[in-house]
Amino acid sequence: MISNNTEKLLRKLKAKKYRWTMELFVAEGPKVVSELLDLKMKPQHLFSDKQEWESKGATLISSSELKSASQLETSNEVIAVFPFPKFDKSSKSNVTLVLDSINDPGNLGTIIRLCDWFGVTELICSLKTVDCYNAKVVQASMGSLTRISIHYIDLKTYLTATKTPTFIADMNGENVYKTSLPKEGVLIMGNEANGVSEEIKKLIVNKISIPRFGEIQETESLNVATATAILLSEFKRGCV
Amino acid sequence: MISNNTEKLLRKLKAKKYRWTMELFVAEGPKVVSELLDLKMKPQHLFSDKQEWESKGATLISSSELKSASQLETSNEVIAVFPFPKFDKSSKSNVTLVLDSINDPGNLGTIIRLCDWFGVTELICSLKTVDCYNAKVVQASMGSLTRISIHYIDLKTYLTATKTPTFIADMNGENVYKTSLPKEGVLIMGNEANGVSEEIKKLIVNKISIPRFGEIQETESLNVATATAILLSEFKRGCV
Repeated sequence: MISNNTEKLLRKLKAKKYRWTMELFVAEGPKVVSELLDLKMKPQHLFSDKQEWESKGATLISSSELKSASQLETSNEVIAVFPFPKFDKSSKSNVTLVLDSINDPGNLGTIIRLCDWFGVTELICSLKTVDCYNAKVVQASMGSLTRISIHYIDLKTYLTATKTPTFIADMNGENVYKTSLPKEGVLIMGNEANGVSEEIKKLIVNKISIPRFGEIQETESLNVATATAILLSEFKRGCV
Repeated sequence: MISNNTEKLLRKLKAKKYRWTMELFVAEGPKVVSELLDLKMKPQHLFSDKQEWESKGATLISSSELKSASQLETSNEVIAVFPFPKFDKSSKSNVTLVLDSINDPGNLGTIIRLCDWFGVTELICSLKTVDCYNAKVVQASMGSLTRISIHYIDLKTYLTATKTPTFIADMNGENVYKTSLPKEGVLIMGNEANGVSEEIKKLIVNKISIPRFGEIQETESLNVATATAILLSEFKRGCV
């Protein structure tokens, strides 16, 4: 059974405000929870409606309790509360990724996994970007969430202070395949519908784009996660 | 109101078998339906619970009728039945993409959009790959579905007959950044969990991989859609 206090906690953790005040987040489903446990993350609470989870320290609850505790559309076997991961400040990567108002949790999760793959250890998010501890982001980013240091800050302040060459992904930017990218750089990706905001565009000179090859020029812009994949690959391909 | 016959048709079109026999598919939601109409696709049926769709030829139905007709978890404003798009056989691209058992509709939709962006006009799918006319794929691929010629065939037969240099995306393949890719080629992407099947791997000599840069080598493999984005970009970047 879930105690009243824990039930209250789980309800509070649906809100970003409480997650960041308490530095706790909720992970759901056997895949991501197993991965977090394997990474030695210590859950503050662990509940499951499947007996096999008892050996991993889970308290057995009914399926209806699990369903009502879940933040997802369909609850799935296990729900856990973890403290925010801690990061070693010394490991700084040569490429930093900046996100300007990414809305979709699935996109942010995919981008966090991409950072992990490409060794991008710092991810800077605008204050309007979806919370990385949102249950759907946690599910999509998997264990990568524990390896990327993610900061929510005012982008204008951050970018004004940055000395590293900075590049905006922009439909009207220079062809990335013809651009000589530096070994150290900052890449800014914008919102799914509107791209990078005008305010930020004014600050940054370098704009890069992925050329479109299709004959019929009607394709919508690339999804932001696939565009991030291609641009991070372009930054990194020179390093091998 | 939806007639009994149309209701039956909509129900049948939930099954791949009927979609391919009748060469009809269902599209849902204002974004994708508007885009298909803009592309001059002629719907065989068009229903909406919003009056503004009447001017586009929609029959007004109740929200509960829309909900019961929908193939998605949440119905959204409009549902339409379209005939399969027709393709101009003459436009053949230099890169052909082959999918071996892609399961996730969202991944297939993203990959179809990537093909459109990179001018890959032929997409070959194994018989076990999720149907491109599945309602979720239709939603994710948007208008790109009308511009990519998609074939479901036995991969072994297809690949045995192919004379073009063929490359498998494989974790143990050669570093793609160090591989000289040909201007004409076939790229094979595998299933989300298991990669390309052993049967196909036996047929193909060339294997390429996207190197992992993260220091901690625990990152799961890249999502198949983001890996496809990077590899198509690698094939095409030499062409600009």
